[in-house]
Amino acid sequence: MTKKTDVIIIGAGPVGLFAVFELGLLDLKCHLIDILDRPGGQCAELYPEKPIYDIPAWPSISAQGLVDKLMEQIAPFHPEFTFNRMVSSLEKLEDGGYRVTTDEGETIEARVIVIAAGGGSFQPKRPPIPGIEAYEGKSVFYSVRHMEDFRGHDLLVVGGGDSALDWTLNLQPIANSLTLVHRRPEFRAAPDSVNKMYALHERKELGFEVGQVTALNGSDGQLESAVVKGPEGPVEIKCTRLLPFFGLTMKLGPIAEWGLNLHENLIPVDTEKFETSIPGVFAIGDINWYPGKLKLILSGFHEAALMAQAAKRIVNPGERIIFQYTTSSTNLQKKLGVA
Amino acid sequence: MTKKTDVIIIGAGPVGLFAVFELGLLDLKCHLIDILDRPGGQCAELYPEKPIYDIPAWPSISAQGLVDKLMEQIAPFHPEFTFNRMVSSLEKLEDGGYRVTTDEGETIEARVIVIAAGGGSFQPKRPPIPGIEAYEGKSVFYSVRHMEDFRGHDLLVVGGGDSALDWTLNLQPIANSLTLVHRRPEFRAAPDSVNKMYALHERKELGFEVGQVTALNGSDGQLESAVVKGPEGPVEIKCTRLLPFFGLTMKLGPIAEWGLNLHENLIPVDTEKFETSIPGVFAIGDINWYPGKLKLILSGFHEAALMAQAAKRIVNPGERIIFQYTTSSTNLQKKLGVA
Repeated sequence: MTKKTDVIIIGAGPVGLFAVFELGLLDLKCHLIDILDRPGGQCAELYPEKPIYDIPAWPSISAQGLVDKLMEQIAPFHPEFTFNRMVSSLEKLEDGGYRVTTDEGETIEARVIVIAAGGGSFQPKRPPIPGIEAYEGKSVFYSVRHMEDFRGHDLLVVGGGDSALDWTLNLQPIANSLTLVHRRPEFRAAPDSVNKMYALHERKELGFEVGQVTALNGSDGQLESAVVKGPEGPVEIKCTRLLPFFGLTMKLGPIAEWGLNLHENLIPVDTEKFETSIPGVFAIGDINWYPGKLKLILSGFHEAALMAQAAKRIVNPGERIIFQYTTSSTNLQKKLGVA
Repeated sequence: MTKKTDVIIIGAGPVGLFAVFELGLLDLKCHLIDILDRPGGQCAELYPEKPIYDIPAWPSISAQGLVDKLMEQIAPFHPEFTFNRMVSSLEKLEDGGYRVTTDEGETIEARVIVIAAGGGSFQPKRPPIPGIEAYEGKSVFYSVRHMEDFRGHDLLVVGGGDSALDWTLNLQPIANSLTLVHRRPEFRAAPDSVNKMYALHERKELGFEVGQVTALNGSDGQLESAVVKGPEGPVEIKCTRLLPFFGLTMKLGPIAEWGLNLHENLIPVDTEKFETSIPGVFAIGDINWYPGKLKLILSGFHEAALMAQAAKRIVNPGERIIFQYTTSSTNLQKKLGVA
């Protein structure tokens, strides 16, 4: 079933979150979609505990603290969230609105699209294995969305961080066999996970190989085995699913295919409405570009406020917008639940 | 003696204060001038206790609380303040910089001027007394800067608010005589002050007349008496100084005379640098105008950040500006005193 809302916000980082507030003051309902599994974007993902010093009126606030405050501030507007999804396509509808489709096939429709995707999507890094593309999405996966999809398989997990170790421990009980491959015996993961993995390896309940995957064998995207080159030469390991965990990288992703004018992977906008080259599609925060642009969170907040006025005119054309202050307007205070 | 600094900021409201932060990160020293007697501008003057709900990441903060947080945030940069002064003139210097002169004749010089004057200056309202202009600054004053200037005078204080009552009580001991005039016997001032005034009146230590000043007598700006029209007809009261306290109004003030392009009493700026029609003179916050402009504090914060980059290029021409984040730059953290 296709969901409908007033505004779809792509990206639930600080700027996407604050957009909910500015749109909410104008009675617009928002649905946010983010590739991560929680709000906060880059802030929450990369440096949750790190202090930020240049949020106005916050001499110091942790990235997670900032996200928490913004979530509290937008709570009165009850935004909807879809996490763990990438928006894969954007379609213009007959009625002038838009339909977005996620990489899991869900569809949402709205009059206004706001791209607040920061540096782009966090996407898994592809390991340097020749021909791996042919297996992706069929027998090579960069994340585990449904554990059951891996039950009974011969799994090869590659990597040395927490994701690799966590999935090794989680999937080992349901796999037919599981082999972990890392280029050295030391890990960058939680020591407890590493201990558990070594204990399972001692009991021969999983395989562990030091080395790098250098070749894949199989056909039609169906993996049959992988060659791991270690200090004692190559070994061939039977596997039907490969899970490489080589970290995340930022990519513009499918947004680049939507026909927007781009400028060095950024989306040029005007400084009156922060609208892109496609009417009704706005871009705010680090992903946009205009003369003087600084990639500052505080600039994204300003962009969200001006965008909201333009979005309101699209969603409710002809309706008079009365500019009001939260300090003095009982009407706005009612929306915020404080009057 | 003329003071020198990098940037003179006219107006010490939230946006002027945050400009100190953004300029400080770029090693620019600031001097702020404000007509009020403390930082905070309109916020602190008109509604210090009122909550504001649309400062990003502050679900609710009082106007005074916002000012306090901003003062804390800019403390590492040790800005200088001149309070109780209006900037009366702006002069271009031979070397490309500017000299401002306050209404008390102090002069300060800087390469860059930032007008962050909000709705303009808070200026006293002029009472509707014919010919009062001729006495202003000579024997009619709208504020008391130096109490000693009023010693030994016959004072007429007009008004019914706290300013009128407070100055009545403060000046009565040093005046030769003092008469308070208000259009009715009730006051909008602190009850305690009103009680004290009536007690002094009982003891015949000050005069109190219900009515309105309708005419002034004197010559060459020197007041000799005023006519007060009350319910029982006009009375003439001997006075050498008149102090009307009719409240404050917002005026653009002397800024209007500086040769800046104006647009309905606002200062048009570009959205790349927020520079006015005079190079090196910037305008940020409620006083500026550009397409899409919203008079929001959060927009002023953004404008301050972009302005600071342009100001840096003027103060240190040719110096390479490395854009850094407070979260990751040890250099910036040292300036903030946190690394």
